[in-house]
Amino acid sequence: MADERDGQDEIEALREAQYPTRRANVPALEDILYTALPVLDRGFVRLIDYMGDDGAVVQAARVSYGKGTTQVSSDRGLIRYLMRHRHTTPFEMCEIKLHVKLPIFVARQWIRHRTANVNEYSGRYSILSREFYVPDEKGIDTRLAKLREDADQPDLLGDEWRQREAQHLAAQSRTNKQGRDDRLSPEEAAEAIRLIRAESRRAYTNYEKLLNEHAGEPIDPNAKGLARELARMVLPTNFYTEWYWKTDLHNLLHFLSLRADRHAQYEIRVYADVIADIVKRWVPLSYEAFADYVMGGARLSALELSVIKRLVAGEKITQKESGLSVREWRELMDRLGREE
Amino acid sequence: MADERDGQDEIEALREAQYPTRRANVPALEDILYTALPVLDRGFVRLIDYMGDDGAVVQAARVSYGKGTTQVSSDRGLIRYLMRHRHTTPFEMCEIKLHVKLPIFVARQWIRHRTANVNEYSGRYSILSREFYVPDEKGIDTRLAKLREDADQPDLLGDEWRQREAQHLAAQSRTNKQGRDDRLSPEEAAEAIRLIRAESRRAYTNYEKLLNEHAGEPIDPNAKGLARELARMVLPTNFYTEWYWKTDLHNLLHFLSLRADRHAQYEIRVYADVIADIVKRWVPLSYEAFADYVMGGARLSALELSVIKRLVAGEKITQKESGLSVREWRELMDRLGREE
Amino acid sequence: MADERDGQDEIEALREAQYPTRRANVPALEDILYTALPVLDRGFVRLIDYMGDDGAVVQAARVSYGKGTTQVSSDRGLIRYLMRHRHTTPFEMCEIKLHVKLPIFVARQWIRHRTANVNEYSGRYSILSREFYVPDEKGIDTRLAKLREDADQPDLLGDEWRQREAQHLAAQSRTNKQGRDDRLSPEEAAEAIRLIRAESRRAYTNYEKLLNEHAGEPIDPNAKGLARELARMVLPTNFYTEWYWKTDLHNLLHFLSLRADRHAQYEIRVYADVIADIVKRWVPLSYEAFADYVMGGARLSALELSVIKRLVAGEKITQKESGLSVREWRELMDRLGREE
Amino acid sequence: MADERDGQDEIEALREAQYPTRRANVPALEDILYTALPVLDRGFVRLIDYMGDDGAVVQAARVSYGKGTTQVSSDRGLIRYLMRHRHTTPFEMCEIKLHVKLPIFVARQWIRHRTANVNEYSGRYSILSREFYVPDEKGIDTRLAKLREDADQPDLLGDEWRQREAQHLAAQSRTNKQGRDDRLSPEEAAEAIRLIRAESRRAYTNYEKLLNEHAGEPIDPNAKGLARELARMVLPTNFYTEWYWKTDLHNLLHFLSLRADRHAQYEIRVYADVIADIVKRWVPLSYEAFADYVMGGARLSALELSVIKRLVAGEKITQKESGLSVREWRELMDRLGREE
Repeated sequence: MADERDGQDEIEALREAQYPTRRANVPALEDILYTALPVLDRGFVRLIDYMGDDGAVVQAARVSYGKGTTQVSSDRGLIRYLMRHRHTTPFEMCEIKLHVKLPIFVARQWIRHRTANVNEYSGRYSILSREFYVPDEKGIDTRLAKLREDADQPDLLGDEWRQREAQHLAAQSRTNKQGRDDRLSPEEAAEAIRLIRAESRRAYTNYEKLLNEHAGEPIDPNAKGLARELARMVLPTNFYTEWYWKTDLHNLLHFLSLRADRHAQYEIRVYADVIADIVKRWVPLSYEAFADYVMGGARLSALELSVIKRLVAGEKITQKESGLSVREWRELMDRLGREE
Repeated sequence: MADERDGQDEIEALREAQYPTRRANVPALEDILYTALPVLDRGFVRLIDYMGDDGAVVQAARVSYGKGTTQVSSDRGLIRYLMRHRHTTPFEMCEIKLHVKLPIFVARQWIRHRTANVNEYSGRYSILSREFYVPDEKGIDTRLAKLREDADQPDLLGDEWRQREAQHLAAQSRTNKQGRDDRLSPEEAAEAIRLIRAESRRAYTNYEKLLNEHAGEPIDPNAKGLARELARMVLPTNFYTEWYWKTDLHNLLHFLSLRADRHAQYEIRVYADVIADIVKRWVPLSYEAFADYVMGGARLSALELSVIKRLVAGEKITQKESGLSVREWRELMDRLGREE
Repeated sequence: MADERDGQDEIEALREAQYPTRRANVPALEDILYTALPVLDRGFVRLIDYMGDDGAVVQAARVSYGKGTTQVSSDRGLIRYLMRHRHTTPFEMCEIKLHVKLPIFVARQWIRHRTANVNEYSGRYSILSREFYVPDEKGIDTRLAKLREDADQPDLLGDEWRQREAQHLAAQSRTNKQGRDDRLSPEEAAEAIRLIRAESRRAYTNYEKLLNEHAGEPIDPNAKGLARELARMVLPTNFYTEWYWKTDLHNLLHFLSLRADRHAQYEIRVYADVIADIVKRWVPLSYEAFADYVMGGARLSALELSVIKRLVAGEKITQKESGLSVREWRELMDRLGREE
Repeated sequence: MADERDGQDEIEALREAQYPTRRANVPALEDILYTALPVLDRGFVRLIDYMGDDGAVVQAARVSYGKGTTQVSSDRGLIRYLMRHRHTTPFEMCEIKLHVKLPIFVARQWIRHRTANVNEYSGRYSILSREFYVPDEKGIDTRLAKLREDADQPDLLGDEWRQREAQHLAAQSRTNKQGRDDRLSPEEAAEAIRLIRAESRRAYTNYEKLLNEHAGEPIDPNAKGLARELARMVLPTNFYTEWYWKTDLHNLLHFLSLRADRHAQYEIRVYADVIADIVKRWVPLSYEAFADYVMGGARLSALELSVIKRLVAGEKITQKESGLSVREWRELMDRLGREE
């Protein structure tokens, strides 16, 4: 990974040069083009390029010659209609390219979104930087609600796992679910952070030992080093990597719907949040429709829908009468803002 | 396209031969393997092969060594959990291969599902059969509700189109929406059917003229014919083609969610219905969860959800107070089974 | 499909408006942006938008901060290296969007390229135009070499087909392979053209009859029309459709390698040729490498390679000694420019 | 990851159960179904399921009713024709599902093949096993040829990188290119292995510390542990993960063409080699064609082809006269088995 100072100069040069274009253009994106938006302790998201805007979605939906009507009101209505009825192909007509620096374990989740183009920095050919992610106390706390939810999960991994999990969580959260007991004490958190930092440094030192190289020089001029592609395997997955990532708006929104969600791991969610802000600048109408219909919306099963019909009709109904499982009932009441 | 009689013999031979396998096996599918299930007047769906079953979904979700617990109850719970929370990858672990005979205009919609493998009968190299789709009266009637819905559609194609559409529909449905007036009269329907049939025959005759070939013989032994790849272009899109189509269960369910839907064109919906029956035999637990959470379920926007909260709380609320558009309000009341 | 005159005005308006951008910009593409490049008798390709340039390929390959070195020489070397060694992902970092008007039978081949985004003009909701493709004499002649090649094809469709094909071709090409006899006589060609044109017109008249609509007015004000989605099926596949089509550079080059090839049908090849010209303007270095390594290159089998080794070593060798089949031997000698 | 002993019992149970099927069946694959084929020190490939055989490729190519002719000779010819002319879609009609245990850094390369279905063991919800990859001396030696090749690579990462690389390699390979000097001495290799093993153990101990869990019990019953999804990030990428991986034959062959290649990293190549053996059992005709046309074949550029033409014609020609770069010339002579 290039030296950051050089990078900064190049970014300035790129930002200064402007060219006239006839293409769809989004001033709010031009403002942030090439700028590294910081994420986590050393990561970033940089907008590199984009194609299309809200008008391009409308244009594709109309498949007409020009840009369609310029009245925002009707574009907005059409975009909301498309989002509501899952007419997803027009949203594929916009494309975005990001440069992202992210921990390897985040990259491993991210890459599962297959409909995207990726070029990653290669540890086979290049030396990886001494840059690793260390969570702060907030990052550590974030997980607790999640941990509690996991205890509620169905038996994904067999009964044994479930029993062990229950015991494990019992050990962690002795008394009440909302209690401060769940949190690592400040001392425990500090100790975890200290250990992660120290061991990450140690791992990088081992990496250099195996390569027999430090700061571009052999450590022992008379010795040989291991191939880079092999030495790198001692680095843990909190080390940063970087890539160019390009995808279309439809698939990006799908990414956000899964990764900006509260079930997503905190470390990928913070990237999704930064990207969501970019999308809001880029295609405000599409983003608004997405926020309303997908992120803020709900999916109901046939059974849940029938329960709601009865509730709306004024019927009193208990979980047992509902036909829903305890978990489903609780989730539904939660969404309806009812205490039960 | 092979002669049907020969085809029938070969199918019998295939159905008689049985081999021992250690793979996941579904007797209910073995029963219908290779059998042509009729669709429309001359089309069919034939199950050619399949991989996996409900257990394979569970197995992938557990990523454990074996088949997981054999207790159906827990498999069912896990599959419902996966469906409810859109954990779609385990459903990709099942695969199905179908042989389908379908009109070209249906094939043109179907092929839009990109995550599938397709081998289509080639009109470049082979002579197309004299087989075309002619709707019956039911096929013609089916569309009327649809036509009425279209009139409600937002302005997909500009104001001009909308105005013309309104006039056009007015001409068609003079008085009341539910009236028999909407329907083509039996005479009109019969005339449409007659015209489609006669012109399809004529088109095939022209195709043969261009090829200078009929029943495998030159029509005029002293003349030359047009290349097949060119001659075929005079055949209308109600002519049948056929293909092998292979996809995974997740993408198949997505196909069904769009094509077995009432907004889908009748001619593709009847294929989706036959395939849905195959899926029900194949993976009954996955199909049940799909029917409950996707087909029978509903997606609500943030605004719709807030309206439902107020209704459940016993509040009286009108469309104007709701913040929903007239169309959205009507759709929501419809789903709640309320007259408004 | 919108009225062409209106379209022209909108295109002019789009071409006049220019905005400053910091994105990668290609003046040679800006020049042709939105302009309809004619293909066949009524089709076109219109460049709507693009993302990236040769520099973006290099940038992705380097995954560095900036644009990399500006020295063309080294960029060229890197791009050639990537192409030669099939490092395809950097070429995915460029994206292009085209508006294409094309006959349905061409669209049916084109859509097989699945890694692309498509929005097609919908015959379900809109009236299709009275526009159809009629080949000229050149279009008809083009096929003859192809027809002869087909006779050489292995037995794709069973022995019966092959025998019939042989007889059919014999009827067509009596004497010598290069002879004028292969060609339809001017009279035959004129007759084929006349028939295609007349029958296409007739089909459109039938379409209007079924719709009960002509020039936006009901033909019989007291009668009802068939749904558009159904009436359209009487139109043959030489009728034009149009779509927005968006893909990345890697997949576009793959498209060209198959569709600009002499084995491709003439009617899609002419589209591929126009697109190849656009690519040449867009990414001249990538195009040059593609032309050299892919389009102008050759793939040799292990056996062919061993034969070449022996030939280079000065050995005399016959087809029989080579181990190659007659067909493979002929293809190889052809590529080596040897008569045999 | 489940206990291996239990796994073994389940595998035996799976292998014993047999069912009658009408589907395409491959006895040579049934023989190895569910059996773990060892790779590296602790990895494996296990065949879980398959769909289709060589006949299914032929069947799709013919799109006929039945299985086509049973004469192997004609099937072989057709399959070779399809492979030679890149008619890839029939090869997509076969599907395979594997259970693979592999180091994380191998998984990171593997996952780049996007056209596949994957379910990976989750370190978010489950405890990762204390299993990591340690190369043996062969694994370490393997890379040396590769290292030398890298020095020849074009300037992928800028001049600075190249200079440093050159110096680095100079330090490694002092004298002659073929010399034993390139290799790590047995002592150096042993030291590298020792360090990797010790540090991997240490990393796992740290993982357990962060989790506050060992062998299913809290280490300190009064303390709390870090969330699994966070603790896992201290494990290096030589730790094993496992997944179910499903893909079609065409994409599998593409995977092999890149990963069974000598440019691939040794640790993924050994997996590709085991999979190649499975493919050979599964579809012997397709594999033979693939081995001949793709793996054993060569791609020549237009310029290389013209040089070969001149050589075959008996012309004497030097690198300078050829128009090829030094690198290209050397690569070509290498393929022609000529010393230069």
